Amino acid sequence: MAKIQLFDFELSGNCYKIRLLLAMLGITYERVRVDSTAGETQTAEFKALNPRGQIPVLVDDDTVIWDSMAILVYLARRQGDTRWLPDDALGEARVMQWLAVSENELLYGLARARVAVLFDKPFDIAQCHRDATPGVNAMEQQLSTADWLAADHPTIADIACYPYVSLAEEGQFALAPYPAVRAWLARIEALPGWQPLRA
Amino acid sequence: MAKIQLFDFELSGNCYKIRLLLAMLGITYERVRVDSTAGETQTAEFKALNPRGQIPVLVDDDTVIWDSMAILVYLARRQGDTRWLPDDALGEARVMQWLAVSENELLYGLARARVAVLFDKPFDIAQCHRDATPGVNAMEQQLSTADWLAADHPTIADIACYPYVSLAEEGQFALAPYPAVRAWLARIEALPGWQPLRA
Repeated sequence: MAKIQLFDFELSGNCYKIRLLLAMLGITYERVRVDSTAGETQTAEFKALNPRGQIPVLVDDDTVIWDSMAILVYLARRQGDTRWLPDDALGEARVMQWLAVSENELLYGLARARVAVLFDKPFDIAQCHRDATPGVNAMEQQLSTADWLAADHPTIADIACYPYVSLAEEGQFALAPYPAVRAWLARIEALPGWQPLRA
Repeated sequence: MAKIQLFDFELSGNCYKIRLLLAMLGITYERVRVDSTAGETQTAEFKALNPRGQIPVLVDDDTVIWDSMAILVYLARRQGDTRWLPDDALGEARVMQWLAVSENELLYGLARARVAVLFDKPFDIAQCHRDATPGVNAMEQQLSTADWLAADHPTIADIACYPYVSLAEEGQFALAPYPAVRAWLARIEALPGWQPLRA
């Protein structure tokens, strides 16, 4: 059986996406702790795994995949069913729309605001909140008429968007105006395999 | 035959990605001009197409796809061959790694620096260049030993990364230290169907 390692930091929302999907798929794996706040992603040894110098990185036997979005796609396809990631043009594009939101508004808006607050990074929190708003508004609109972002069941789109939305208030972004988003957070937290960030 | 419309602005690098792939796939389409610099993506009518208020948007008969990454995936899958987007786990994940770079370092680094310079937007150009560097470094490393980003032939990864790298100097990001990236730009510009931004 293949041995999977996840290079991981417990407070990283991008790593949390991978831990959630691995748990929901029932895949066992080894966690290798890399403290990105202590410079451990910037060493020559780590950059040999990932030239961008970022976590998460997944190692599946001798295959190395970096980037949270690429790892979600890899794990869903590796599983060999299309429930988490459809393979028809429209079904896959619907998932990609929300993966793009997760990499744009949520990462450069919500996640940056959170690291500015938690780790005292020099990002403009008001600008981050402005960057986040169109994405969270689009989620609220979608989730006002549907239970999940990209299909009539959970997909990797939901897994990709969940961490930084669930952590939004750590970055001082208020979720009170987003009742459909808050109901969706609760639906995800009821899925088999869900676990908190600080598990 | 399906009628394809692209809601498009000629100076947008994200729209340019779609124009390039449509041309390389030999798909005819109608361009609908939306001037994002004049607020035309923020109208209620446009937001009914795309709640994020962004171009590009693709309409294929009655199917609406927003987001440049989602549209690239949609068009590649719709074509029904896996040359531009493999469907095996590793092949697809390799493409997704570079789509992620295109949405992160290139968009929030190179593209933001460019709109700061061209359209006088209030972004910190030095911060944008710092954001861009790990992504362009990773491209230089990959392209030092391979002709293309994600396979032994062009994929949508190359199409997604090309526009904002080719326009980097409009955002005052120097490409002189990146010879492998510059050789790759020339390879893309030699592909059948390539066209300049301002065609």
